[in-house]
Amino acid sequence: MNPFAKKIADSVADLGEEKLIAAIRRWLGNASPRAPFGIGDDCAVLPPSRGPQLITVDPVIYGRHFDASIPPRAVGAKLLKRNLSDLAAMGGRPTAAVLALTLDSRTDLAWLERFYRGLAACARRYRVPIVGGDIAQADGILAASLTLLGTATGPRVVTRTGARLGDSIYVTGALGRSLPSGHHFKFSPRLAEGAWLARQPAVRAMMDVSDGLAKDLHALTPRGATPALDAATLPLRRDADLRAALTDGEDYELVFALSARADDTAFIRVWSRAFPRTRLTRIGHFARAGAMPPTALNLGTFSGYEHLR
Amino acid sequence: MNPFAKKIADSVADLGEEKLIAAIRRWLGNASPRAPFGIGDDCAVLPPSRGPQLITVDPVIYGRHFDASIPPRAVGAKLLKRNLSDLAAMGGRPTAAVLALTLDSRTDLAWLERFYRGLAACARRYRVPIVGGDIAQADGILAASLTLLGTATGPRVVTRTGARLGDSIYVTGALGRSLPSGHHFKFSPRLAEGAWLARQPAVRAMMDVSDGLAKDLHALTPRGATPALDAATLPLRRDADLRAALTDGEDYELVFALSARADDTAFIRVWSRAFPRTRLTRIGHFARAGAMPPTALNLGTFSGYEHLR
Repeated sequence: MNPFAKKIADSVADLGEEKLIAAIRRWLGNASPRAPFGIGDDCAVLPPSRGPQLITVDPVIYGRHFDASIPPRAVGAKLLKRNLSDLAAMGGRPTAAVLALTLDSRTDLAWLERFYRGLAACARRYRVPIVGGDIAQADGILAASLTLLGTATGPRVVTRTGARLGDSIYVTGALGRSLPSGHHFKFSPRLAEGAWLARQPAVRAMMDVSDGLAKDLHALTPRGATPALDAATLPLRRDADLRAALTDGEDYELVFALSARADDTAFIRVWSRAFPRTRLTRIGHFARAGAMPPTALNLGTFSGYEHLR
Repeated sequence: MNPFAKKIADSVADLGEEKLIAAIRRWLGNASPRAPFGIGDDCAVLPPSRGPQLITVDPVIYGRHFDASIPPRAVGAKLLKRNLSDLAAMGGRPTAAVLALTLDSRTDLAWLERFYRGLAACARRYRVPIVGGDIAQADGILAASLTLLGTATGPRVVTRTGARLGDSIYVTGALGRSLPSGHHFKFSPRLAEGAWLARQPAVRAMMDVSDGLAKDLHALTPRGATPALDAATLPLRRDADLRAALTDGEDYELVFALSARADDTAFIRVWSRAFPRTRLTRIGHFARAGAMPPTALNLGTFSGYEHLR
């Protein structure tokens, strides 16, 4: 569905700002609390948080993260799910979201309604109140940026830092071909898995795979180490090859380091009991830099999605 | 300064994403804490909040909120100050900010550096850590959206709701001609004033003036009432006329309702002691709808800035 209307009467310009905001509140329905706890005041009021909080921000932009081929409801859901995936990667759960929308005045009202209804359905599913937002107009643009606030689900927040030499590298799900397969908007953020992993002391560091494993793994790799991956073990999405799995990006899977002292067989067994439907794969370990096993993948020949190039 | 470079070598495209993020962290300096409390992980970790929290989001967009005539440092500061003004309007103080940047790959690196350095200087001044962000590329766009998190400064958060029939209407500072005068980027958000006002029980409702007083006052007006303004009292910015003061917008002043039972003279006296350099003006009161004093301004003939038209 083309997000830009051919006729003014079908566009947001025909409605004007005040009626548009009223429409958005209707579309969001009970996914958006009443002011001052939701949209309608200078700020939204949020309850105190007992534990540490988490915050992240990610956008969807027309021509970059979606186009006319993606159903608008799925675009709205993708916006929230991208951010939920970041929260999952630290073992968090969501508490509130705010949305900044930038749109051309020719934006199709029917497209926008479906976008918001898709966002609202996803917000209800993951119990995230949409508490605030902003609408700005700019020519030729359709972009939405969502800031997600969350909290730790347990005593620990898992960061990207903490992996050690010798630690095993694990990844959830399958990798590659996220765009052609539609995974990039159909995926489920690994919130339950992330929360569970954050409770396992042997899980030392974690992140989500968004720019491609080859690039993202840098951030998880401890100093003096290099990721030694076994190509044969990499979980490939249907029709994906090694290069796709390592570089396509938008996988929204979790990659984490498991202590070398942990029992891998036992760990996979308890995982399978907790998440019988989420594949978990040991794909390698952190080897000493300069002492790569001869059979390990040379990641230097692969690079993930590089923005701005 | 033109934000778009003529030569690729001067643009962000020449740097690439990883080096750009490193540069941004350098430009932000100590305005941005280290990961996981700042930029560099999937989410930023924030301390627990004891009291209720406040959250708001506002953007600056090239061609809409700034152009090549505004110094890039001032654009960075304006982005944060717009959001601080929303926080001031509820009596809050800031605790953390995240920034979502959308830019064309031709964006001038020198422009961007000054933008971030201006933001960082403002963040230090108001003690707001910039804890996270996102960079996305999109053709022909230069826009930044900032989400600001805050907390109440006292036992009460003041909302737009709560004014009653007969309450006095007050406004801080002067109104009108914000754009031609440069006030729209030179202003100081009324944080101290907002915090002070929130501690006065006679202040019943408050908001900031961003879209023009004539439009914004609707949100403060109780049911069955209408704002009866005395044109002669409206505090005009230099060279501003009545229409400019009521409709220009971007004033970033506070407008609030003071209980009819309060002693206006005494109130203005304690205000002047607390804020000798911030003008405060009683501009009218909330009259019964249909019983407007004949000398009162007819606001129906004025309308504030209407987005999307």
